Order: sequence, then C-alpha cells, then structure tokens
Amino acid sequence: MKNQFIGTSLDVDDGKVTLTDYMGSDLSVVNAARVSFGKTKTEMDDKDVKLIKYLAAHKHMSPFRHVVFTFALEGVSEVVCRQLYKHQVGCAYTSGEFKEAATTWNEISGRYVEFDPEFHFPSEFRKQHKSNKQASLEGECVENNVMARAIYKEAIDQGFSAYKKLLELGVCKEQARMVMPVSFKNSLVWTASLEAVAHFIKLRDHEGAQLEIRNLARAIKKLIDPICPHSLDALVNSEK
Amino acid sequence: MKNQFIGTSLDVDDGKVTLTDYMGSDLSVVNAARVSFGKTKTEMDDKDVKLIKYLAAHKHMSPFRHVVFTFALEGVSEVVCRQLYKHQVGCAYTSGEFKEAATTWNEISGRYVEFDPEFHFPSEFRKQHKSNKQASLEGECVENNVMARAIYKEAIDQGFSAYKKLLELGVCKEQARMVMPVSFKNSLVWTASLEAVAHFIKLRDHEGAQLEIRNLARAIKKLIDPICPHSLDALVNSEK
Amino acid sequence: MKNQFIGTSLDVDDGKVTLTDYMGSDLSVVNAARVSFGKTKTEMDDKDVKLIKYLAAHKHMSPFRHVVFTFALEGVSEVVCRQLYKHQVGCAYTSGEFKEAATTWNEISGRYVEFDPEFHFPSEFRKQHKSNKQASLEGECVENNVMARAIYKEAIDQGFSAYKKLLELGVCKEQARMVMPVSFKNSLVWTASLEAVAHFIKLRDHEGAQLEIRNLARAIKKLIDPICPHSLDALVNSEK
Amino acid sequence: MKNQFIGTSLDVDDGKVTLTDYMGSDLSVVNAARVSFGKTKTEMDDKDVKLIKYLAAHKHMSPFRHVVFTFALEGVSEVVCRQLYKHQVGCAYTSGEFKEAATTWNEISGRYVEFDPEFHFPSEFRKQHKSNKQASLEGECVENNVMARAIYKEAIDQGFSAYKKLLELGVCKEQARMVMPVSFKNSLVWTASLEAVAHFIKLRDHEGAQLEIRNLARAIKKLIDPICPHSLDALVNSEK
Repeated sequence: MKNQFIGTSLDVDDGKVTLTDYMGSDLSVVNAARVSFGKTKTEMDDKDVKLIKYLAAHKHMSPFRHVVFTFALEGVSEVVCRQLYKHQVGCAYTSGEFKEAATTWNEISGRYVEFDPEFHFPSEFRKQHKSNKQASLEGECVENNVMARAIYKEAIDQGFSAYKKLLELGVCKEQARMVMPVSFKNSLVWTASLEAVAHFIKLRDHEGAQLEIRNLARAIKKLIDPICPHSLDALVNSEK
Repeated sequence: MKNQFIGTSLDVDDGKVTLTDYMGSDLSVVNAARVSFGKTKTEMDDKDVKLIKYLAAHKHMSPFRHVVFTFALEGVSEVVCRQLYKHQVGCAYTSGEFKEAATTWNEISGRYVEFDPEFHFPSEFRKQHKSNKQASLEGECVENNVMARAIYKEAIDQGFSAYKKLLELGVCKEQARMVMPVSFKNSLVWTASLEAVAHFIKLRDHEGAQLEIRNLARAIKKLIDPICPHSLDALVNSEK
Repeated sequence: MKNQFIGTSLDVDDGKVTLTDYMGSDLSVVNAARVSFGKTKTEMDDKDVKLIKYLAAHKHMSPFRHVVFTFALEGVSEVVCRQLYKHQVGCAYTSGEFKEAATTWNEISGRYVEFDPEFHFPSEFRKQHKSNKQASLEGECVENNVMARAIYKEAIDQGFSAYKKLLELGVCKEQARMVMPVSFKNSLVWTASLEAVAHFIKLRDHEGAQLEIRNLARAIKKLIDPICPHSLDALVNSEK
Repeated sequence: MKNQFIGTSLDVDDGKVTLTDYMGSDLSVVNAARVSFGKTKTEMDDKDVKLIKYLAAHKHMSPFRHVVFTFALEGVSEVVCRQLYKHQVGCAYTSGEFKEAATTWNEISGRYVEFDPEFHFPSEFRKQHKSNKQASLEGECVENNVMARAIYKEAIDQGFSAYKKLLELGVCKEQARMVMPVSFKNSLVWTASLEAVAHFIKLRDHEGAQLEIRNLARAIKKLIDPICPHSLDALVNSEK
C-alpha cells in the first residue's frame, strides 16, 4: 500500500497507521506541572522522572493533556475504527467513511474520485476461544483456513456486487451501501492527548481485546514511545 | 416489534426509539440561569420565555445542560447509530453491538441469548439525488422497487449465511462478523443534555441528511418537545 | 440560611448543597449494560450486583453515565467552587458569580437584586500540617482562634469596603471587584454523571484534600447513596 | 516581567501570554477533510481556501480539531483565568494556583520557592457602563484615578498582610488564603484545539466582555493568526 501520509508509519494487519503530527514530550508534562515555578526545563533529570511517576500514580492527569498526537489510519476496517470512536474524552476524529461522503466537499475542488472501497481480508482465521465467548485464540488457525478464506471472499464479493447492482437500478447511495460488509476499509484522522492515547493502549493492548485492535494499540504504542517514554510508561503501568 | 423499554416510544423506519428517562424542563433552564437570585420558580411566565430566547441567542449554553434525556434505540441499523456517535459533547453511549458482546457480562448472570441479528430492510428504495452525490430524493422511489428489494434481500442472506458457515468452521466470532452487512440492527442507550440533543436535531432534521437519520431526529424532537418546548424551539431555531 | 432550592439538602460548613434533580439508579446501569438483551429489569438481584462490580472493576464506564444528578450549591466559597470546575468530563456548570453577572438577564425580567455578597467565615482556624505543606490538621485548632477570627473579619470588611468605595468613585464593577476576597460565597448548579460524581468523591473525600472540599464531597456522597448504593460503592472503592 | 516560557509572547495588561507549542496549520484542516482521497497536500491553493470556508459555514468542525495550541499565561489575574476555565470542550488546563499548591510535587525535587503572590494592578480605572450593568466604558477613565489607585492598593496590601498574620498565628494555608483578593495573579498552561480557541475569541473579543479578558483574546488571536489564517478567519467570522 502506498503511504499517502507524511510521518512514521507502521503496518497494522493489511492497513497502516502513521504518526502525522505531535506536540510536546516528557518535558512538557514536567513544565506544565511546575507552571508556577520560575523557569522552564529543557532537559530531564531523575527528579523529573519521579515527578512524572508521582503525577500518574496520584491521578493528577492534567499535565499529560498538553502532549498531543495526530494519527492517520488508512485501510483499517470499520470494525477497528469503531473501537476508536468509543474513546471520546480528549479525542477528535475526522473519518473518511465511504468515499462518496467526501465528494460533496470534493466538488468544491472539482476533482472526482471513483468509488472503490477495499475490504479487510484476514490471511489467517483464528479459532474461537472456548471460555471467553468474545475472544479468539491468538496464533491458532482453524484447520480449514483455505475454505474460510473462500467463504469470506465470496461474501465480500457478493455484498459489493449487490451494491453495484442497486446503484445501477438508480437506488441512492445512502440506501445501497446498507448491503456492504462491515469489513470495508476506512480512513481516519485521530487527534488525541497523551492521556487519551495511553488509556486506549491500556484497554486495547490486552488479551481480551480483538486481535486486530490489539495490533493497532501495539503499533501506536511503538510510534509514541520515543516521544514521551517516561510518561507513557507511568500511565500505562500505573494501575495494572 | 415488542417494546422492551419502559417509556414513550416512536417507530423509526423498522426500528424504535424510546424516551426511557429524563430530568429537568424549561423551568430548570430558567432556575439555573438565575441561580444567584433568591428563589426557585415553579411556574413559567412570559419573562421566563424571553430569558430562554436571550440565552439561546447569545449562546449562554450552560443552563441548557441541566436538562438531560436517556433514549433507548432498538432495531436501528448500525449506519444510523454511527451518526449518533459523532455527537460526543455532552453525550454518553452504551451500545449493544452484536449480541455476543454482551455475553461476557451475561455469563456472570448465567443466561445466554441465542445470536440472532436482524437487519434493516427498506420498504422503498429512493432515487439518487442528481446534484448532491450524498443525498436521495425523499418520496421518489426507483422504478423497479421489487427488484431492488430482491437484490437487497439476497445480499443480506448471503452475508449472514457466510457468517454462520465461518462459525461452523470454528472461526472466532470477531473475525466471522466481518462479512456481516452494515445494515445489521443494533441497540443503543444514549444519554445526552438538551444542548446536545438540540444540536443533533438541528444538524440531522435537515434535507441534506440521510432520510433514515432524519426520521430518527424527527422522532426524538417529538418525544422531548412536551418536556421543554420553549428551550427546544429557542435552540433549534436560534441560528438557522 | 433559607433553602431556596427544592430537594434534599445538607449543610456544608456555612453553606448548603441540595440534590435538586436526578435520573436513574442501579437498575439503569444494569439495563444499559444489557441493552441488547430482550427485557428491562425492574428489580435488582444478586447477579445485578455482581454485574455492577464487574463493570467498575474492568472500567466499562459507559453504563454509569446514564445516571445523572443536579446539585445546587449555595453559600459555598469560591475557593471550594473552583475545585468543582476542575472536574470537566461529564459535567456542566452554571455559576452565579457575583450577583451583577445575573442582572443582565435579570433586566429582561425587570427585577433587580441589591448586590450583597457574603463571605465564608470559618468558626475554627485549623493548624498547618507539618510535613504536607498543602494540608491542615483536622480537628486541631490554633491556640489563638479569637485573634484569627478578628484578623479574618477585618480583612473581609476592608476588602468589601474598598469595593464599595471604588463603585462610589464611578469605577466599573468588573474592575472594582478585583479587591474582593476569594472567600466570597457563590451559587452554582452542577449537573454530572454518576461516573463524574464518583470520581470527584474519590479524589476529594481524602485526607490530602482541603477540609472544606472534603466536607462537600462527604455531603454529596450522603445525598446520592440512597439512589445507587451498589454503583457508588463499586466506583468509589474499585481502585483504592 | 521576565519571560520564563520559550515561544512568542505578548503582554496582556500587566501579565503575559506565550504560545509555547502548537501542531498543524490550514493544511492540516484540508488534509483531514480529504482523508479518504489519495494524497496529502503540502501547499494551499484557492480550492483549499474555499473548502475551509465551506467547512466552517456548514459546521463540519472535526477537521479544525486537529490543529492544537498550548499557551502559557503568567501574571494573569485569577479573574481572567476563570473565564478560560469555562471553555471546557476541547481544552485542557494545568493551573499554578497559589505557589504552595506546587510544593507538594516540588518537595519531590527538593527545591522550595518562597510564596510571593503578585496582584493585578490596573493603571487606569474605567467608568461603569450606564445601560449594561456588567460592562465598562473602554477608554473612559474615572475622574479621580489617583484616589481609585490608592484605595485599590490599600485593599490589596491589607488582604495580603492579613494572610501573613494568619500564617504567623499558625493557621493553615488553605484557610489563610481565604482573605486574599481575587486579583491575585496565577499561572496557567492551556492546551486547546483551534475550534476551541476560535470559540473563545468569538465570545471574548467582544464589546460585552470584560476588557482584561478581551485583551487576552486579542493577544491570542494575534499569536495564532500566522499559523492558520484562513481557518481562523472562517471560524471567527462564520456566524457573526
């Protein structure tokens, strides 16, 4: 997949997440917490690391809200995107939806992009977890993975083909798209504070989470770790 | 459809919205705005109506946040629910997702509900709007509505059938559901302030909105109008 | 103090907090969590209590956001009110500020309320905590409480008197009020979800908090406990 | 006043506001709105300006939430800071409060800063507005400005002196500070999205606002204008 966004990217299943922008660092947290003091620090020392741990442990969260990230998600299935929407506090989203949604704005610019949804396509179908009805067994593939892929592919093709046929009959797009499979890929810009991102990672980089979402959480953790390692560590591990 | 929730209900297409709880009224708005005065009013008069108009016109929104509603949505397609999620400020959601999602909690209680998704099924397929690529023509049905229904039904059946087959192969539910059509019906509890609900109505009871969503906005407007008629009118009509 | 608000009230130092409205209960939490199931429960049983504990322990917070409270605070010093403002998520405020602030709206109604601020007046001045520079020693009064009261009273009188003199010189209220002591009493309407109120109680009913604020947290806890005892217990004690 | 923060600063009365960090630009808005298209733009053209105007006029606000600013306020009176706290949506704050508030964390670092509050001191006392009880007459000074300054100064001195005396009696800081005038200067770190900052500017750079707050709004507008001129213009002027 061509990477349309500028920034560091990581693959997430058959999609991609890019850190397109950010502001702040561990020092921003420290300087915000000490706003009433007489100077701005430009280098971390041991006392600053202790302060960050203290803030996280005592849930003084406001200093962590001055570090902010923007991520662009491309080719990520709507099922995964929806998990992000549930994290509202300190977050902002702009979603690509189906491409038609953008053409209203697009008409302003005179361009037109052919509609061409893509769908998430698993390479391996995991087994159902025995006791946890919501979970899968990571790394354990079903015996007949080939047949699973065939059934999956046919369903996707049929859904997309029905969508096309409805359009040909003159049906409006907003009704026709109702037959599309939920695995359609979406694009999304997500801007969130460090507090919100750390909360997402804690909840989703977890064995009870859907593997596709856990993979996204792991990728995001890797992307921001170099920017604010002490704060990320303090927040993610503070209450476990 | 049997109405599982207690409260006033209205049909929305082939689903239902119920006002299950609320607090406050026009008087709550007035009393909050005059919190520093010496008494609580228990009846509205003309001056109170003027005050409400003044507050809305000058965007003094905080008094409108003390009136709060809870709605239960049943049998509403996920496509419609997603529009609600975009309204974050002053809102809280608990979504039913696929029924499996609830069984983790359910296992605590020992009950088990057979998985049985339903899908939104349009009775009439509307024509595509000519100039607005996102919109449909309200009241204008495609010529071959019968064929549209047949194509739609087949696509839904195929998607659901593929889901069942994948489960039979042992595929985990979180991957199998990827083939389900986006029209699957969801249940949702939505709690929102009067400010947030009025904002939703303004944006969605609008000719540019998807008709299914406009129908939801109209139903919600009808449900809350008896509770706070002056505030609702002032908010919805303040900037149009 | 005459209680202007309708509802259950408790004294907080020389002010008052009233639960003026609320919606929901422990059952609302349970029914929201089970929205996808086929019925609404109208009585709690042991399994519901377990479910509530499970939700709190696993930080599935959304079901707790459908229970909402409105409190009116009267005669509470601005220093205490400011602690409330810091709790933003799931909260709404309408503040009385100085009474002038309300007269703009008031002029609409034709009434006029003479400006008459009151100030918080401690009956006992507590000793400074030795090791915690921010805290006081609960129950330990300074030796010369009479002199402390005299100094305090004189300072309040002087501040208020300077305010009056500035007004007489024709100075605008917005500048004149700058000399008023921070202990002026304010009125406030606070609407907040159960999640937000429980978070406030956890942080402020705590020995590190200012005693005046801790007293407010204790009063609020007492007011809501009869409404949702299981949820309140699960939220407040979940991570301690 | 020595500028402790790194970034562009402007004076606001006898205080200062510094833009310490930011991310995004007009292009971030455009690229977020077109997330579903095939490329990232790196230069603005006329169509992009039109798109920004379209977004603001139709209240598609989410693209404006990916531009974020951090401001440090120093030496700004608490009366002004409180106006900022009222803007909750898309905002985060870390306040300096009285300096003692920071010493708990400070003790971790071993440093100690002598308590030394400063107070806002107006050079000119404006006349009260005749018809608007809340407003002042910009540019119109009271006849006896010298006496107004003397009364103001004496009140501040008396309040601060009473605070010191109470501390000497052993009274805890949290009670002693109750006699301090509300004009005490605070420090504050404010992080807010472009949407939130533009909303603040619209409400506060307005003749009905307190002049001290209007001055802050004007300074902030000047600081961010070079970063996102088209978006700022579209948002601030969209509904006037």
